[in-house]
Order: sequence, then structure tokens, then C-alpha cells
Amino acid sequence: MGEAAFEDDLPVDSHALADVDPEFVGNLRQAIADRDGDAIRRMLAPLHAADIADVLEQLTAGQQEGVATLAPDVFTGEVLAEIEPDTREVVMAYLDPSHLAAAIQELDSDDATEVVEELDPETRAAVLAEISEIDRQAVEQSLAFEDETAGRLMQREFVAAPEFWSVGHALDHMRASDDLPDKFHDLFVIDTGFRPVGEIPVCRLLSARRDVALSDLMEPPRILVDPETDQEEVAYLFQKYHLVSAPVVDSAGRLTGMLTLDDIVHVIQDENKEDMLALAGVNEAGLADTVVRSVRSRAPWLLVNLATAVLASGVIALFEGAISQVVALAVLMPIVASMGGNAGTQSLAVAVRSIAERDLTAANAMRVIWRELATGAVNGLIFAVVMGAVTILWFQDVALASVIAIAMVLNLACAGLSGILVPLGLVRAGADPAVASSVFVTTVTDVVGFLAFLGLATLVLL
Amino acid sequence: MGEAAFEDDLPVDSHALADVDPEFVGNLRQAIADRDGDAIRRMLAPLHAADIADVLEQLTAGQQEGVATLAPDVFTGEVLAEIEPDTREVVMAYLDPSHLAAAIQELDSDDATEVVEELDPETRAAVLAEISEIDRQAVEQSLAFEDETAGRLMQREFVAAPEFWSVGHALDHMRASDDLPDKFHDLFVIDTGFRPVGEIPVCRLLSARRDVALSDLMEPPRILVDPETDQEEVAYLFQKYHLVSAPVVDSAGRLTGMLTLDDIVHVIQDENKEDMLALAGVNEAGLADTVVRSVRSRAPWLLVNLATAVLASGVIALFEGAISQVVALAVLMPIVASMGGNAGTQSLAVAVRSIAERDLTAANAMRVIWRELATGAVNGLIFAVVMGAVTILWFQDVALASVIAIAMVLNLACAGLSGILVPLGLVRAGADPAVASSVFVTTVTDVVGFLAFLGLATLVLL
Repeated sequence: MGEAAFEDDLPVDSHALADVDPEFVGNLRQAIADRDGDAIRRMLAPLHAADIADVLEQLTAGQQEGVATLAPDVFTGEVLAEIEPDTREVVMAYLDPSHLAAAIQELDSDDATEVVEELDPETRAAVLAEISEIDRQAVEQSLAFEDETAGRLMQREFVAAPEFWSVGHALDHMRASDDLPDKFHDLFVIDTGFRPVGEIPVCRLLSARRDVALSDLMEPPRILVDPETDQEEVAYLFQKYHLVSAPVVDSAGRLTGMLTLDDIVHVIQDENKEDMLALAGVNEAGLADTVVRSVRSRAPWLLVNLATAVLASGVIALFEGAISQVVALAVLMPIVASMGGNAGTQSLAVAVRSIAERDLTAANAMRVIWRELATGAVNGLIFAVVMGAVTILWFQDVALASVIAIAMVLNLACAGLSGILVPLGLVRAGADPAVASSVFVTTVTDVVGFLAFLGLATLVLL
Repeated sequence: MGEAAFEDDLPVDSHALADVDPEFVGNLRQAIADRDGDAIRRMLAPLHAADIADVLEQLTAGQQEGVATLAPDVFTGEVLAEIEPDTREVVMAYLDPSHLAAAIQELDSDDATEVVEELDPETRAAVLAEISEIDRQAVEQSLAFEDETAGRLMQREFVAAPEFWSVGHALDHMRASDDLPDKFHDLFVIDTGFRPVGEIPVCRLLSARRDVALSDLMEPPRILVDPETDQEEVAYLFQKYHLVSAPVVDSAGRLTGMLTLDDIVHVIQDENKEDMLALAGVNEAGLADTVVRSVRSRAPWLLVNLATAVLASGVIALFEGAISQVVALAVLMPIVASMGGNAGTQSLAVAVRSIAERDLTAANAMRVIWRELATGAVNGLIFAVVMGAVTILWFQDVALASVIAIAMVLNLACAGLSGILVPLGLVRAGADPAVASSVFVTTVTDVVGFLAFLGLATLVLL
């Protein structure tokens, strides 16, 4: 370390490789093509597991398979835990069960579960048969909880001490213990029924005198997590209360596991990604996806969009007569629809984000609905003036300009309103406010846009 | 605690209030209207600072002002650190400098800086004059760094020990110290030049024997952060390496501060929010925004959209003759544009997300560009067939159906391509790939959509 570490803009330890170097990846590809296991090992072994994962994800599935067959020992437990599920699926098919069992046994139960859950039933049984009884039970119990719940996310390894112990007692116990979790940030204090009654940040334990009672040092647990709780809910509470870890309790209130902030960070990222992609109409996406998978994740929403676009066209078809008399209507009508779609998407993104952050609640929904309507209407007025002026300059037609101006106000007000009401309605219906909401909103803005503009034109101009 | 905590779906400590209760807020509003400071204090004082913040954010600015004037002591340092910048600005205007100084002095330097930076220069000087020399210097040094950098985000409070100390020596020192940070997760080990040479997770310190040398227990720091580094970069490294804290060093390599994961979580959320809103064309948004502010953050993008929509209309205007002869063109043309816009947005969202997660790099960009083009083309083929069939059923016109089918393939392929090339181009130009990218992409899909459909129609049908 020292001076040498400062060569780059962001000084990182020489073993780390923050951004993947294309040349490095090129050399690795060559080593795989040469079927040179030693070279692969020499290149990857010195790297941090997270960097190995980043490099592997740059490879094609065939190249990943090459690494797994030529240099299987690259895949330690940590590397398996770091790589994306898709990559993991590919490489695990080429690693033998005893290797997998040894790798999994290195991991805390949450990471072990994540790795095991993707094995096919046969390999899973073979792997589980080779790991220790205690680890196997931990993994099987975690798998019994549904995906995306606290139970699936928690680790079974935690540190707990009875409330009548002193700091010194707890420290001596920890020093004597040989199976502490890799990392822990809080000591959980439990009563005689193994129920958590307090927690003590590890740093506070360090600075306390040995004769202090744990019960004098502890604070009541900020949250007790039910293992059935959705991970998004837990992530919200971690953020809100700035938690670094939290106890998970069973139905009898007994401490059964621990959640840590670094797992929660991944939940936060996943949920954000889901929301953003859902708003754009993509079901799920990984960068390693093939064309077939990309098509499969996007075509359904395009189909829904096609249906709503045809619906909007049906509205236009009602006014074929008007359009054939005043072709300028065909030229201008997409502007009204496009502005509505944009304003609706803006309003929707703000609403979805506010719902995700729990800022939008029953207590303030009315105020926000009103604000979105007013914002839409004000923007509508602004762009009514602008577009009215453009229309007069372009077509020298004041009546046409008035029509587009009025349609703009109506459509932008509807856009603001539907941008907030659609996600609120989805939440009330128990659905995810991000999924499908933009299709609903743009349907409203297309239909209202065409109807208002062409309808008014028919009344005023013909 | 115990059984009582399990009444709700998610058991939380009785002092916590995970979701804001509208009735509670209603009662608080009443207390403010009654100008009953005692009632306000009675309601808010027992809550966690994060819950107080949530409740305050449900109030109008006028009501927030009421709380600040009637019950100023509600605003402890922690509460000021928890509330949103907008709310903070409102209430701080009504708290006197000595109250603010006392509140700020409770905080670690990162939170103190966040609070102080929003004071107007005059109040800031008055407040800083009342806090201790050391705290004032820490705040002033942090403020010297740019917003959204590691230097602004770090706290000056950390725990460091020389490498020649033993565990026992370090523990004794910490026990004797009275100004340890509120929370810390790693002990930084430094050389004689105050340069970090290692870090030891606090939990590992707890379980180590007293006579072990720190140098035997430490690992080299995973990253050393330059205070000028962008916070997004730091957040990426925290996630990648599962860090809970990291040392910040000055240009001479000396340890000057510490970043912790719980601050990084807020950075992650903010960056995600920024990306999502930018994609939807909103500059920035808070739920407490007024109509004026909402209009101001959205109108600029609507104006850009209007310009591009007028451009697309210009394309349509080129084909007025064709439309006046075949009105069905006007009916069908928005479908081609709408499908292109959607497909482009899908491709764009996947790209922006992949760039944010550092999955999309120079090493794999070509493969991803190719995949997006192919995905667009395949989806184009699928919807060419579907829309061709719809057109035949609707207009009984095979030539028209062929025209829309070909236009669909062309536009969806362009959509896929522009969805990936636009954000990559913005990154190469040093810009944020989320900002403005959807406007570019939909401009492409509108123009290509109208041009391909109406152009082909002119060639084939007329």
C-alpha cells in the first residue's frame, strides 16, 4: 500500500480491479481458447471474489463453461456467491458435487442458500448429502421460506447472549467460540425463552467496561423481523432506522436469524432495478440475456402497447372525415398525444418513486393528487400558448390554434391526474404500482389527446 | 416486547411507527391549529427521530413552521438530520441559532455538515460561532469539498490505532476514550505517517486474544478513498466489495475521515431516484414540492419534447398529399411511432441500468449493441405479422398491411439500436446516460416511424 496506491484517480488496493480491463478479459479469453487451466488460474486466483465475478460476467456462456472445466478451483464459495444467477447456473453444471459441497460449506447460511437454490433437484440432493448436518439443516430451513422474504435472506449465524451476563462474560464467551459468523455488527441480548430483548452495537461493547451488565448497555431491538416479511418491507425499515443488522424471530418470538445491511443493499438495488424496468415495460433483464430472452421479456408489453395503440387509432378513425377535409389535423394530432404521454410519465415516475419511499401515504394522497392535477393544468396552459403560437405561424389558422391549445390543457391535466391515480389504484388493488402503470397512463393520454383534439376540431372547424 | 410485538404483520418496537397513521397526523394538525405546544411535544417526543421526520413531512410548510415555533425542542440534532432538505429549510428559519448550534453539536460531522450547508450565510455564521472549535473546523473542512463527493459525505470521527499496538492496547485505549464516534464498524490501523495500512472489523477485534498484534489481525484496506471522488463511484465500490466502512485519505495518504455503509445506502437511493426521474424527464422532485416547483422541474423537458414532436410533425407534413388520398395512413401512423417509442424505452432502461451497475463495459459493448439490434428486429418481425394481420382485417388492404409491416421492422430495429447507442454516446461524452436520453430515443423512433411508414406508403400505394 502507501504511495503506490495513489497512482489512480480512486486509489484502490492492488488486488482490486474496480473496472474490468478489456485487455485482461482478452487475455483470459485467449487462455480459455488455448485450454490452458494454469494460465486461467494464475490470472484469476489473485483477484477478489467480486472481481472474479465481474470478469466472468464479461464472458460468453461457452467461455464460462471453459473456466469451470479447466480451472474449477477458481470457484470458491465466495466466488459462487458473488456471480449472477445466470452465470452460476452455467458454471455449476460443470462442477462436481463434492467440490460444490466444500465451496458451500465455507459460506454463511444466507449465501449458501442462494447458491443451493439454483441447483437442479438431483445435484442439490448430492451436494446436501456431503455437507454437515448443521449446515444442511440451515439451508433446508431457509429454502422452506418463500423467495424474496426475510426468511430466505437471513443468515442463521448470529451472536446472542443472555441478559444477565456482563460485558466481560460475553467477550470471554466470544473469544472461546470457534464458530462466530464471518461478520456481525450487533450482539443480540436474549431472555430465557431465547427471545431478543435488546441489542448492543459491537463497537459499544468494545468501549464498555468488563463489569457492566449487558442489560444496562442494551437498547430494545428497533425491529423484530418476521421471516415471512417481504424483503422490500425489511429494506425500507433498515433504511429508515439506519440499521446495520436486525434480529429475525419465529412465531414464538425466538431469535432464529439475523439480517445484515450488506444483504439489504442488494435488495434495495434489485427493487430499484425492478421498478425502473417495470416502468419501461421490461419484465426482467440481465446483461447476459440472449436475444431470445430479451424478446421474451419485452414482447408481452409491446403486445399490450399495440392493443392500446390500436385503441387510440380507433379513436382517430372516428374522425376520418374531419382529417380528409383538414389534413393539418393529421399533422398536429401526434403532438397533443406525445405531450400528454410525456407529462403522464413524469407524474407517474414521481408517484412510483414516492410510493417506494413511503412518502406518499393516505395522509397526504389528496394533496398530492391535487398538486399533480394542477401541475398538469399549468403545464398545459404554458404549452397551449406555445403550441397555439406555433400553429398560427405554421398554418395561419387561429381556429386551429385555439383547438390545439384547448386540447393541450385538457390532455396535460388528464396526464397529471392519471399519472398519480393509476399507481395509487394499483397499490390499492394490491399490485405493484410500477408494473403496467405506464401502459395505462399512455392509453389515457393517447385516447384523451386524440379525442379532445379531433373532437374539438370537428365542432369548431367543420 | 415479546408477544405483544406480534400483533402486526411486521412486528416493530412500540416506539416505532413504520407507516404514518393518518389519524395521528390529523391529531397533530389539530394541535398545531390550536397552537398547543405541549400537545405537539407530547405526541412527537416519544418517537424515533426517523418517525418524527416522516410525520413532519406529511405536514404543509405552514404546519411545519407551527411545530418549529410552538415546540422547537422537538428538533434535536437527530431530527434535523433525518428530515428532508425542504422541510429542514422551512423549520430552521424558525429555530434560533443557539438552539441550532446545540442540536448540531450532537451530530457526527457528516450529519452536522448536511444540516449546516442549508443555512443562509448569516445564520450559518451565527450558528458556527456557537459551536466548539473542533466541530466548527470539521464542518468547514467538509463544506470545502464539492457536493456529492466522498469528502462531503465522510465523517471526521473514526477510530485508528498504530500498527505496533496489540488488541489489548487498542481495547484499553477505546475504553478510556470519551469521544468515540456514535458507531463504527472497523478499526483502522495506521503507520507512523498516519497512513492507513490495515483495517480490522470490530467483531474480529472482540473475539481476538488481548496479546495478538493488530498487524497480525488486520487486512490491507480494500479501498482508500480520495475525498474528491464522486459519491456514486464510492457507492459502487461499497456494494461490490460488501464494505461497511472505508477510510478516506488526503493527498499525502493520511487518514482524514471515514465513510459508512448507512450513508452509502442513502447515496444509492438518491442515485437510483435521479436515474429513474431523469429517464422520465423530471429534473428533481420531492413529494412536498409545490405546483410551481413541479412545473419548473418538468416544463423544460416538456419543451424539449414539444420541439421534437413538432419535428416529427414536420415529417408528417411532408406527406400531406398521401394522407389526403389515403386517410387510413393518418389512422395507422401513430401505431408505428408508439411501438417504436416503447421498444426504444425498453432498450434504454436496460442500458441505463446496466451502465449504472457497471455491467456494460467496453469489453462487452459490441455484443450488447448487437443483441439490442437483434431484439428490436425480432420484435419488429413479430409485431409486423400481428399488425399486418390487424390491418388486413381492418382495412382489407394487403398493400397497406405490407407497408405497415415493413415500417414496423425498420422502426423497432432502429429503436433497439438507438436505445443502446444514445446512452453509450452520452457516457462517452461525459454526460449522465439517463438525462435527456429518452428524448433522443423517441425523437429517433418518431421520425423513423413516420418517415418509414408514410414514405413506403407513398412509394407503394400512390
